[in-house]
Amino acid sequence: MTTPPDAATSANQGAAPVCNVALLGFGTVGSSVAKILCERSNTHLSLSHVLNRNVARKKVDWLPSSVQWTENIDDVLSSNADIVVEVMGGLQPAEDWIRRALQSGKSVVTANKQLIARCGPELTSLARQRKQQIEFGASVAGGVPVISGLHQGLAGDELFKICGILNGTCNYILSQIELNNVPFATALREAQKLGFAEADPTEDIEGLDARAKLAILARVGLHCNVRVEDILARSIAAIDAVDFEYANQLGCTIRQISWAELKPESKPDLLLAAVQPALVELSSPLARVEGSKNLVVATGTYGGETVFGGHGAGGHPTAVAVVSDILAIARSKQAAITDLGQPSEKTPTVTADFTTRHYLRFLVKDRPGIIASLATILSDCGINIDAVVQKPGCPKSHLPFLITLEECPAALVDQALRQINALDFLVQPCLHLPIL
Amino acid sequence: MTTPPDAATSANQGAAPVCNVALLGFGTVGSSVAKILCERSNTHLSLSHVLNRNVARKKVDWLPSSVQWTENIDDVLSSNADIVVEVMGGLQPAEDWIRRALQSGKSVVTANKQLIARCGPELTSLARQRKQQIEFGASVAGGVPVISGLHQGLAGDELFKICGILNGTCNYILSQIELNNVPFATALREAQKLGFAEADPTEDIEGLDARAKLAILARVGLHCNVRVEDILARSIAAIDAVDFEYANQLGCTIRQISWAELKPESKPDLLLAAVQPALVELSSPLARVEGSKNLVVATGTYGGETVFGGHGAGGHPTAVAVVSDILAIARSKQAAITDLGQPSEKTPTVTADFTTRHYLRFLVKDRPGIIASLATILSDCGINIDAVVQKPGCPKSHLPFLITLEECPAALVDQALRQINALDFLVQPCLHLPIL
Repeated sequence: MTTPPDAATSANQGAAPVCNVALLGFGTVGSSVAKILCERSNTHLSLSHVLNRNVARKKVDWLPSSVQWTENIDDVLSSNADIVVEVMGGLQPAEDWIRRALQSGKSVVTANKQLIARCGPELTSLARQRKQQIEFGASVAGGVPVISGLHQGLAGDELFKICGILNGTCNYILSQIELNNVPFATALREAQKLGFAEADPTEDIEGLDARAKLAILARVGLHCNVRVEDILARSIAAIDAVDFEYANQLGCTIRQISWAELKPESKPDLLLAAVQPALVELSSPLARVEGSKNLVVATGTYGGETVFGGHGAGGHPTAVAVVSDILAIARSKQAAITDLGQPSEKTPTVTADFTTRHYLRFLVKDRPGIIASLATILSDCGINIDAVVQKPGCPKSHLPFLITLEECPAALVDQALRQINALDFLVQPCLHLPIL
Repeated sequence: MTTPPDAATSANQGAAPVCNVALLGFGTVGSSVAKILCERSNTHLSLSHVLNRNVARKKVDWLPSSVQWTENIDDVLSSNADIVVEVMGGLQPAEDWIRRALQSGKSVVTANKQLIARCGPELTSLARQRKQQIEFGASVAGGVPVISGLHQGLAGDELFKICGILNGTCNYILSQIELNNVPFATALREAQKLGFAEADPTEDIEGLDARAKLAILARVGLHCNVRVEDILARSIAAIDAVDFEYANQLGCTIRQISWAELKPESKPDLLLAAVQPALVELSSPLARVEGSKNLVVATGTYGGETVFGGHGAGGHPTAVAVVSDILAIARSKQAAITDLGQPSEKTPTVTADFTTRHYLRFLVKDRPGIIASLATILSDCGINIDAVVQKPGCPKSHLPFLITLEECPAALVDQALRQINALDFLVQPCLHLPIL
């Protein structure tokens, strides 16, 4: 950590030293990490290096000129970078470089699931020896903060089951077979065309991608050291449109489910674990995961089921996880009690004047002209009626009916209601709810 | 932090010092925290004190005899407790005691939403002055790790919207009005009878409980310092069964929604915030929150929507959040790189032999006797057929049909399938999926 030039000479004792970040890989995730680091204010983080093959081709003009662009890992390792961020992917040279970074006394953030699934414990213990940290929150479920959730937020529980949808490509393809009633091959081609599946989709389709993620979750959440290859992975390629018809008849849909479960009472030395297409009940949150999103359900002895969901892939969501890990390391380098990386607090004016559609439910003594009176007041306030609905069979003396309003500020509706609630045909004040 | 007796004399250099925990309040949450602390192995946490009014009445035999039971806060403050856990509730004496604990150089964990919503920033800054921590993960959404999720997992994003269902009582009551078509008053009475609502339900029904939680989320996630009283809170008491009928006609349901949103472009100095009953689309995750569960959706500039869901109340889930906070403080007192509080890692045997119901989909050249052949093999393996389903209108030469099996181990099904897949009427191998 280096002290920023102005802090050294100023009386600004609160200024935290700058934490230098080197980025290995400047693809979708890497450039998104750089973007967030540049756009965030007040982070005390400084991007010092960008490493990429053919780096000249990668240079962008929106990064500060202080950033050193390089193809040579030694430039990074011999520098004053505090945190090395590996977002190149692939097992090599990523593994070597991470080892060398840790050995050089730098902490590491990586999004590399295959590497962490294979060498996580070893790299973590190397980091410990060197009094550094390695964080890999982006390696599972992209922007969904499930690693920190299991490691910290649910640390007080004893988790025994983790299941989820960890591969957005499979989820997208299965959703498409279901929605469009098309064969697997057609859904795959479509996903490839739209960029939701890679040219070689093997890793995704065969469950190898999700299997690496499940191994990481089993380690972090269930404290089980698992070899990736020991987890069964079954392809989704055999699923056909007819299977969704049958599944629906059973009140289910089909999803690629990653499941790891301990049964400490009956099978203390076993971990049940697999990645496979499976039928899940339509009422389950797993059945409702849309498109390429991810969802993880963790079940614990004390806290029951906890759900984490969100965007499991993509440059920006994955970069959020990477930057969160960078901040976590920067904070712990600074001791936990500082405010490093926290944007400064605002004290805004608070208002409930949401602009939404609105639901107005009246209870009236029926008589002619009610709608006309209401419509006049609303119109005078500049509010447009969307619909008037009245369910049949209600008593004339207590007649409930509904007016929905087009989008407008709540304050405008409150103004109209002050007049409306004085009208003598109302049995009770109008019920006003926003439609979100 | 004190060194455990055996570690002082042994060569066990890896042993972390014990962290002493004092518990203020031994009600539902407090006793659950004590239970988890006692049942967890390997935590390096030791319960040193339990404070409660009429403490004699509270004593239990399942806590170690080393625990000091007291009614006197000075016993705790003058002790070697490292972390003081406040789970008494109420503004006073909780606030005084937390201040005094911080001033005595102890860190604090609290589940007290009203206190944190009101004095959070002040207490945090007092903690900082004293180089201590105050954690309040249990103050919002009980066991759902949303505070740590916002503060750490999503720290890399710039969040601008947080909305959610933060009060299980209201969610339960509204669900009951909807499901049973009963008036509000009936649903409330039922909830009180079942323990889902308190004798005086004002805090919940009027939105005051959720409002305090929303103020905390706005601070942690949106970095907005908000006075609780400035947030609009509207009662759910005016909602009637007829409103669910109308809402359903609009493709919606009604939930108590807590919403805080920044619009930095159009309204830079405003925070839109309210707790109120609102119509939400049936397809929204907010519409699907069951019973007394909680759900929070955080939306960020980079990561999009992230969902956190789970049990928002109850002794055990809330205690999980408290213990997670205790562990976070213990870890940071120990420097982040130790393993404190992490259960030791297992290396279990991995198996995919889940016991579930099973889905077997066949594609056959139709001829008489197919079901009989399959049924014989399954029965010989000791597997019970649940149902046979065949959709009409398929060609005889490529006839898909389905057999579902009663719950049995996957390995048994695999054994049967080895025989079945050799049968000559199969056009392709049987598709076998578990029904989860």
